[in-house]
Amino acid sequence: MSPAPSEEGLVAWLRTLTSRGGTLIGDDAANLPSGAVVTVDQQIAGVHFAAGLPAAFVARRLLAVNLSDIAASGARPRHAFLALAAPRGFDHRGFFRALVRACDGYGVALAGGDLALAPQLHLSLTLIGERRTGSATLARDRARPGQTLWLGGTLGESALGCELLRRGARPRGSGVVLPASFSAKGGLRTAAVRAVRRHLLPTPQLELGRWLAARGPSASIAAIDVSDGLAKDLHRLCAASGVGARLDGAALRAAMPPRFAELAGRLGLEPERLVESGGEDYVLLFTLPKTTTPPRRFGALAIGQIMRAKGIFVNDPDAAPASRRRRLANAGWDHLDLSGR
Amino acid sequence: MSPAPSEEGLVAWLRTLTSRGGTLIGDDAANLPSGAVVTVDQQIAGVHFAAGLPAAFVARRLLAVNLSDIAASGARPRHAFLALAAPRGFDHRGFFRALVRACDGYGVALAGGDLALAPQLHLSLTLIGERRTGSATLARDRARPGQTLWLGGTLGESALGCELLRRGARPRGSGVVLPASFSAKGGLRTAAVRAVRRHLLPTPQLELGRWLAARGPSASIAAIDVSDGLAKDLHRLCAASGVGARLDGAALRAAMPPRFAELAGRLGLEPERLVESGGEDYVLLFTLPKTTTPPRRFGALAIGQIMRAKGIFVNDPDAAPASRRRRLANAGWDHLDLSGR
Repeated sequence: MSPAPSEEGLVAWLRTLTSRGGTLIGDDAANLPSGAVVTVDQQIAGVHFAAGLPAAFVARRLLAVNLSDIAASGARPRHAFLALAAPRGFDHRGFFRALVRACDGYGVALAGGDLALAPQLHLSLTLIGERRTGSATLARDRARPGQTLWLGGTLGESALGCELLRRGARPRGSGVVLPASFSAKGGLRTAAVRAVRRHLLPTPQLELGRWLAARGPSASIAAIDVSDGLAKDLHRLCAASGVGARLDGAALRAAMPPRFAELAGRLGLEPERLVESGGEDYVLLFTLPKTTTPPRRFGALAIGQIMRAKGIFVNDPDAAPASRRRRLANAGWDHLDLSGR
Repeated sequence: MSPAPSEEGLVAWLRTLTSRGGTLIGDDAANLPSGAVVTVDQQIAGVHFAAGLPAAFVARRLLAVNLSDIAASGARPRHAFLALAAPRGFDHRGFFRALVRACDGYGVALAGGDLALAPQLHLSLTLIGERRTGSATLARDRARPGQTLWLGGTLGESALGCELLRRGARPRGSGVVLPASFSAKGGLRTAAVRAVRRHLLPTPQLELGRWLAARGPSASIAAIDVSDGLAKDLHRLCAASGVGARLDGAALRAAMPPRFAELAGRLGLEPERLVESGGEDYVLLFTLPKTTTPPRRFGALAIGQIMRAKGIFVNDPDAAPASRRRRLANAGWDHLDLSGR
């Protein structure tokens, strides 16, 4: 028996162990020599989502989360393979109806899988995508000093939605019922509903990923999807690239969705903490040369700069003097250490 | 909530549901247009193997079982992706050391995956192989009347080994300790140890699969690996091909390993039942034109013939008059109905 390792430590060890696959391990998706891009992700009831979530939501969320890994690779998703272990009485048909419909919407064919009975609902989805010839290979290790650091959208909303679900929010049909303990109207209510929906069904940024890949084979672009929190995923990106980063505190505040800080306050949560280490927002975190700006339709936000010197810092001229330049801790979700959340 | 469906029924329904992937679903591995062959299989502690099995055995068995699906497609395995959910204290390093070593032995690169903590050990492995251009596409639906039905090797041994494990047999180092309640010497002891080893570590028939595929693109060859028992897997093959089969009772007896019937008797099990519906032997079941015989090195056994008329029968001139021609029931392992075993 070995002590519970961290995911990071185990993956680093694994890369030294494998003679053949080592160079492929470590990104959200593996770029195979054939041009295929492959990602595998699992979702477990009680670990990744609440045990009572209706089967159709489980299906859509599973697909969306995995598509986000394909998005970070800049590929086009093509085929899905599902390993499904479910308890007796699981709504297989409701699940598959939703999954196939969602796959259809993304041009993905559900092409195979494996079914089993098990006491706990456990899903593992493999997605295979295609890299366009002549496109940039997006990877964590491609950040270069001087590049601008971008976010594909706002952050923190999913963690906030997760908290609302923990307090009793529930999906009903295509809507959301907020917990009885939470009374809000107007914009705040809208913000709460949007947060729950975003947690239940994140939007994979496939088009943005493909736009990045289309910068061409000579472009050095780092990309990762923010699944485990900005801090953790940025630390991963910087470690893989051997660089540091300087974030702009005002830009991070601008990455909060409308009414977000107010909503977080109502729930007794710190909005900054949700933004920095909340996780599961599934927006892309990526780098571009200073002179390149993504089209406005993507709603991307410049949040800082890649630095030669290691370490990740937040600069915030508006903060109290002691925290105008603070280190961003590597905190967030570790899949092998549940104490992280 | 829908009633617990059978795997067969659910897969058939699923094929009608999916507009894109339907034609790909149903074989052990999916043949993608790119030439890639993909298979996904899961192994769950307490469902597919005993909860206390050492991590290294779990790893090797997981790979072997999945490689068997690739074998049935005639492809060469290339890349593996692992979704691993394990309880705290799981021997991750022992597991990965064994998995990577086993992958290396088959020319497979472990290229990615996903790790999670979960109360129960759950593994899902995706294997991607390559089909050689100009090779036959092996599939369940390619059996033709008049073809000879072949087995890649002996049957029933794995189920017998599984029973010995249930009675207390244990792997120790590279050997096997038999249960104290089971005393045997010489050939019978050797047969018992071999049965346990075969259950723990089946041999995927990759070379045989590739030999079949090398019959060329115009060859119509049905192939499936016997995972859920000869009866069930032959029913699948015949249903997909729209044919029947006539098995030769004497040939089925010849498909028993040495001392098998005696060993089964000692455990109070019917040897014929183990051969016909024991499952998990992972030999290939395949068809060939009457005039083609696999090279002797594969140890393949001709066990019958594909018939135009549906229904699967066993002809046995040596049997009692009433059972000289008996119907082979579609009995064996259903992954969604644990009462099957």
